[in-house]
Parts: sequence; structure tokens; C-alpha cells
Amino acid sequence: MNRKMIMYILGKMLGAEAVLLLLPAFVGALYKESSAVTFLITAAILVALYFIFGRKKPEVTTIYAKEGFVVVAAAWILWSMFGALPFFLSGEIPSYLDAFFETVSGFTTTGSSILTDIESLSQCMLFWRSFTHWVGGMGVLVFVMVLTTLDKNNSMHLMRAEVPGPEKDKLLPKTRSTAQLLYGMYFVLTMVEVILLLLGGMNLFDSLIHAFGTAGTGGFSNYAASVGHFDSAYIDAVITIFMILFGINFNLYFFLLLGEWKSFYKNEELWAYLGIIGSAILVITCNIAQIYESPLKAFRYAAFQVGSIITTTGYATADFNLWPEFSKCILLSIMIIGACASSTGGGIKVSRMLIVLKSIRKEVKRMLQPKSVNVVRINGRKLGEETVHNVYIYLMAYVVLMISSVLIVSIDNFDFATTFSSVIATLNNIGPGVGAVGPTGSFSDFSPLSKIVFCLDMLAGRLEIFPFLMLFSIADRRKF
Amino acid sequence: MNRKMIMYILGKMLGAEAVLLLLPAFVGALYKESSAVTFLITAAILVALYFIFGRKKPEVTTIYAKEGFVVVAAAWILWSMFGALPFFLSGEIPSYLDAFFETVSGFTTTGSSILTDIESLSQCMLFWRSFTHWVGGMGVLVFVMVLTTLDKNNSMHLMRAEVPGPEKDKLLPKTRSTAQLLYGMYFVLTMVEVILLLLGGMNLFDSLIHAFGTAGTGGFSNYAASVGHFDSAYIDAVITIFMILFGINFNLYFFLLLGEWKSFYKNEELWAYLGIIGSAILVITCNIAQIYESPLKAFRYAAFQVGSIITTTGYATADFNLWPEFSKCILLSIMIIGACASSTGGGIKVSRMLIVLKSIRKEVKRMLQPKSVNVVRINGRKLGEETVHNVYIYLMAYVVLMISSVLIVSIDNFDFATTFSSVIATLNNIGPGVGAVGPTGSFSDFSPLSKIVFCLDMLAGRLEIFPFLMLFSIADRRKF
Repeated sequence: MNRKMIMYILGKMLGAEAVLLLLPAFVGALYKESSAVTFLITAAILVALYFIFGRKKPEVTTIYAKEGFVVVAAAWILWSMFGALPFFLSGEIPSYLDAFFETVSGFTTTGSSILTDIESLSQCMLFWRSFTHWVGGMGVLVFVMVLTTLDKNNSMHLMRAEVPGPEKDKLLPKTRSTAQLLYGMYFVLTMVEVILLLLGGMNLFDSLIHAFGTAGTGGFSNYAASVGHFDSAYIDAVITIFMILFGINFNLYFFLLLGEWKSFYKNEELWAYLGIIGSAILVITCNIAQIYESPLKAFRYAAFQVGSIITTTGYATADFNLWPEFSKCILLSIMIIGACASSTGGGIKVSRMLIVLKSIRKEVKRMLQPKSVNVVRINGRKLGEETVHNVYIYLMAYVVLMISSVLIVSIDNFDFATTFSSVIATLNNIGPGVGAVGPTGSFSDFSPLSKIVFCLDMLAGRLEIFPFLMLFSIADRRKF
Repeated sequence: MNRKMIMYILGKMLGAEAVLLLLPAFVGALYKESSAVTFLITAAILVALYFIFGRKKPEVTTIYAKEGFVVVAAAWILWSMFGALPFFLSGEIPSYLDAFFETVSGFTTTGSSILTDIESLSQCMLFWRSFTHWVGGMGVLVFVMVLTTLDKNNSMHLMRAEVPGPEKDKLLPKTRSTAQLLYGMYFVLTMVEVILLLLGGMNLFDSLIHAFGTAGTGGFSNYAASVGHFDSAYIDAVITIFMILFGINFNLYFFLLLGEWKSFYKNEELWAYLGIIGSAILVITCNIAQIYESPLKAFRYAAFQVGSIITTTGYATADFNLWPEFSKCILLSIMIIGACASSTGGGIKVSRMLIVLKSIRKEVKRMLQPKSVNVVRINGRKLGEETVHNVYIYLMAYVVLMISSVLIVSIDNFDFATTFSSVIATLNNIGPGVGAVGPTGSFSDFSPLSKIVFCLDMLAGRLEIFPFLMLFSIADRRKF
């Protein structure tokens, strides 16, 4: 284990976070808020740590997959720990654990909140809270790679550990230029949304907050009523469409840029994703039609909620707690499925679901005709045994983690729907669940133990579990 | 596909069911109940079908795995369809779908009931209802093999499709003598329980009913209050111990008979099973201690409920709906884990859970040290890739089936705990769930569509999903 190189990369990471903190400090200065100074204090601490760890490149720079996982897991924890400081130092979130929860929820693009009165926060804090979504969406390490070159070999291991989805080969040969292109597209898409929201009469601050929340598929809003605050069909439509766009595999936008239409059209995950969205909207619209004055309004709410939940954004325009159980169960199912691989969305990903369904079909065929050769194909390509195997292992670990979390959280004695959906909502990086953690509730009433479990679930969900398991496994064996 | 041979075996199966029906007919005669005649009518129909299909052995008797799965799935459906006739013909269960549900629940040893007033049933019906548990527990095909020789090669494929658990090799070379030995041990254990219950002051009829329910890990009782009716610490203790005994892999009793103590002691699944039971009892006892007048009473109820749920029996002595959420979540977790492979219990089985946990550990090790060779071992033996792979596929299919069922059942608009636990309870062959289907509730209020889903779930759960998927897959391709 190359400890020195790990320290060096983490040092650089902390320096990068200091740069990020200047943005909310600037916002605070604009609004003449005194709490803005806490961003500068935190940035100063981070710069000091950068000078201690991140300046002198060690002699041996080679790292392997193991170090890659450790760096990624540690980086996310450290960014959240320091990112929580401004909330805590300013006293706007009095408990450090709550501040940490809120920051983890931000960076992992979950959007669950312990705040019961969001609107009482200062503007610079609200800005920082939503900005963490935007940075976390594309990956904090990918972000650092935009700013600085780490090492050609190293970057590969880092991206492999951070980018979500069952297959990671396509983007890897490129690394730094890839990171810059990814962020370029991400930035442009976000800006287009900001402009469209401004055209709908939203002010610049609100537009930025909601574009950050959409782009990162996070879901923090600066209003207690979430996007429902605006009560505008135009704004609902813009955000619905952009949530769905940010849930698509970013490689596909690459293909579009390169003019490779065929690769775009032939992508099975995309069509499955759009198919699920279409059917869910249709069924829920019919199911809730009699609750609202017109079928069109039912459609508007259904479309927004389906887009918000499948991409694991978590914005709300209606209290879906009041919808029939069937609609709630559809939402719970698409919560678990999640968005496309290599998007900013969470969940187990549509492509994994496709692989599972195809594997089951293959298995049934094989049992019927033991001599037939059957392989699992996605987008016309054969999937390696290794990839399929990793999908299984990932899903097993997912279920084990989910059940263990539900058991621990159930000690708090909330009703089953609350307990179960709070774990699903954090592990899949969605935000709100049903019951007490529904769109109008918050996570503030849980015990500190449960909050720690939720933080671990959010991080494990965002990093797809294994970097975390490995961190614990290494610490356990005292090799770290 | 050897259709003629399938018809021939199914014909024999129906003849065997006719023999079984004589037992409740005899009970009815003893109690001078007029409804007993419905058993004779049903038996007559079955005998007629036996003479049509089951008498003439076809020329080609060879069957393969495919035919094995089809026979098993079809046999269970046919036995349930004809086994439901007496309930329906006598008018004691007026709806045929309800009668079918009750019979499927019996044969699959689930123990879920659509009856709201169990005690109004005649004695012969109550006897038949519980007797289906006893026969279904060890497998209806295994039962037929005790009575008759089918064919050496055929029996292997049939047992492979019916005996639960991830590994099926050990018992297979023997078939008919194996089937007889299995039923011998099963019969002796059941009789020991009957005698112990008689010693506790229970009458013969009640003792038989509850021994059948325990042996098959089914859970039907002839009292609305289930085993709680007797309110006796002795009876609770006897049933608790026997439920746990029937949840153990029957191969281990083989080993004991053969004096192979080492194979018994070295069985990891056994110790994991007992370990889970012990910890669950301990934790729940502490959690519910303040609800009951003494810790001893809390222990008695906790032990009974843990034994009842992990073995998927489903008997109740206390209304666990009133327990804290933590205890309920522990029960829900052990519901899913279930009993040992090759026992009469349901669930995903302790050995599958062990394989999953060991696979995840192996995977983490492999990521840390890519060059290390890691294999999954159970009881010191290396597990083949094939076995591990099949476990994954099984669990994936399990989750997909569970989510689809929850979606369909949620149309009935019960609360989430009821919807979710009713699916878990039927798919794992447990019986009661929580909420409206809790130990004091029933499945009578669900829509016909949900009841059909539950019947399919119970059958799929008992036969471990694949025979069912294959039956549909074949029907779908019109090859059948």
C-alpha cells in the first residue's frame, strides 16, 4: 500500500475543496451575510492541510486498484467532514452530526435533509448546500482531475472506483481530457437549464439552486415546499425534462457530440429507461386521476414525480404520501431501479436490471436445453462472465447492506414504511421516502446512531458499496 | 419433450392423492360428519383419471431435467386443484378460488388462510387442511416415490426439481430407498411430537393437527388463537423445539443414523441456523421484556415466535404486531432467511445466505489482492462455480418475483406493511405477515387477482421458482 501517495492525493483533494468554498463565500459577500466568514475559515484550514500533505510529490507514485478504492472512499468522507464545518461554525446547524449528514446528503446527491425549517438558512449556506450536489453529481475526484493532473496510471484507478455502473472501460483510456469533456457537457447542460428557468420568471439565485439540484440529481431546494413552491406548469416541465436528461448515461452525449447516432439509438439501457419512465407515468396518471381536478394536472404531477424518483433526484411537487398504495409501490420500485449507468443518478441502475433479467432468461433457456450456448448481450455486445458476476455480487452486497440498515434503524421504533423507505431513500441517494420521511417530513427525529447509518448508506450508495467494504476490510486487518 | 411419460406420471400422482383422501374420509366417518362424502367423491374422480392416464406405461420412459421440472410444477398445481374440491363441494369454503388458496397454502406448508372463522369447519375438513401440510412438507413427489417406483432415471430428475436447497447431489444416487428413509424419519419425528403433546394434556385430534403443522413447518391450527389457544408453557416448549428440529437439513439426521457424528458437527449451515435463532431470541427477549409481566414469559414468547418464523411455520402464541418495530424487523429478516436446505422449511435458506456472505468476502479480498486465489468453501468443501452461480440467479429471480408481486398486490390499496409482508409471507411459505395479515388477521379481504398472485408465490416459493418459470416459458413458446 503506497501510503505516501494516498496522503499526497488526499492533500490535493483538500486544496481543491478550499477553492470550491470561495464560491459560497462570494455569494455571502454579495448578500452581506456575516456567516460567509465561516467559509473562509474552513478554506484556510484546508489550504494549511494542502501545504502539509499535497505539495511534495512522493518518489514512488504508482498506485493500484486497492489504493484507488481507499483514496475515493477517504476523499468523500474528508470532503464531507470539512464541507460540514461552515454549517456548524456559523451555528445555522447546531449539531455537527446533523451538519455532516446534510453535507454527505449534498455530495452524494441524496437530498435527504435534517432541516425542519429550510427557509431560515442564510443565502450563502443554501448556495453551498446545493452546490455540493452539483460537484458530487459528476464525482469529486473527476472534478479534481479537471483542475489538476495526478498521474496517468493513477487516474484510471480513481475513475474506476468513482464512476457508477457495471461497465467502466469505455471512458478510461482518456482520463484527464475525458474528465474535462464530461464537466464541459455537464456545465453546458446546467447553464441551459438555468436560462430556461430564468425565462420562466424564476430569479437567478433560485434558478441556480434548482439547476444544481437537478444536474446532480440531488434534490435540495431552498423552499420547504420544494419545486411545489413555484406552482408553475412551465417550471415543472423544465425540471422534469432536465431530471430525465441528467439520468441518461453521459457516454451517450459523447456519442451525440461525435455524431455517432447509431451508438446512441442502439443503446438498450436508454430505451429501457425511457420505457420504464413512460409506463410509470401512464399508470400513475390513471391511478391518481380522480384525486386532482383534471387528468392533465394528474399527468403533470405524475411525470414530475416519476422523473424525480427514477433519477433519484427527490424533488416534489405533490405529497405522494397521499397517493394510492399502488402508485406508491411503483415509485418505490423505480427508486430501487434508479437511473442509467454513468449518469449523476443513483439506484442500482437500469443496465444492472437489464443484465439480471437477461441472465434469468438465459438460465431458464439453459435448464430447458442444457446443451445450448447462451450468452448475455447488451447493446448487441457479449457481456463477459466477469461483468455479470460483478453485477450479482454488487446486488447481493446491496441487499445485505439494506437489511442490516433496516434492522439498526428499526431500533428507533418508527413505523415500517418510514423505517424501510428511509433506508431505501438514503442507500439509493434519492432523498425523501414515505411516511415520516415523506416529501413534507425530515430526517431530524432519528437517533444519532440511525443518522450515522444513513450517512454510511448514502456514501456506500454513491460509491456503489465496494470502496467502502474495502476501507473497512483494510482497517480491520490493520494494514492501513 | 416426452409428453406421454409426463401424462403417465401425473396420472399416477392423481391416483396417489385419491389414497390420501381416504384418511380425512375416515376421520369424517368417525365424527359422523356428512361432509366426509365429498372426499369420496373427489377420490372417485381421481381414480377415474388414474385409470385413464396412469395405468399404461408408455414405450419410451426416458425423461430429462426439462420434463422433471414440468412434472413437478404440474403435479403441485393438480394436487392443489383436486385437493380443494372437498372444501368447495361441501360448501364449507363457498368460493373455489378461496378453497384453492387454502389448499395451495396447505401443500406448500405456507399456512396463510382465507378463513375468518376457522373453528366453524368440520373436523374432517380441519384434518385434511392440516394433513396437506404434512404431505407437502417432505414433497408430494417424494411421497409418491414411497408408494411406487417410477423409473430409476426419472426419479432423479423429479427429486432434483422438488427438494429445496442449493446443492442436491448427496441424496440423489439412492432415490426410492432414500425417499422411504426420509419419510421414515419424518414419520417417527412426527409421532414423537404427537406423544409429547398428548402427555401435555392435548387430545389426540389437536395433537395430530399441531404435529402435522409443525412437521411440515406449515402452521395451520384448528383454533383461531393458533397455539396461543392452549396457553401452556409445556406445549409452547414442545412445539418450539420441534419446529426448530424440522427446520434442520434432513441429511444431518441421516448422518446421525449412520453414526457419522463428524459430518453432523462440521455442518456450517446447522451452526449458523442455531446461531441466528439464539441471537434473535436473545435480542427480542430484551426488546419485549417490559411488555410482559416477567422476562421468562418474554423469553417463552420470543423463542416460540423466532422458531415459528425462521422455520416458516407461522404458528403464533402472541400478537407480534404489538411488539416494537425492532423486533418486527428482526422477524421480517429471519422470515426471508428461512430454514436449512433439504428441510421442510421455506425461505431462501441459511446455506444460500452463507454462500452469499462468503462470496462477498471473497470478492472484497480479490479486489484487494487481484492475484490471490479465493474460493467459497462450505463445510470445508470447495463450492463449484456452478453452484454459486445458481444461488445468485435464484436470488435475483426471487427479488424480481417479490417486487412484481408487491406491485400487483398494492392495487388492493392496503397499507405498505400489509402489502409487503403478505407477499413475503406467501413467497417464503410462512403464513402470517404483519398488519392486516398479522397473526390475528386473514387473507380473505384481498381481491381475486391478489389471491391468484399469492397462490403462484406460494408454489414458486415451495418449488424454488425455476420449475415455475420454466412451465411458463415452455407454455409461452407453445412447445407444450
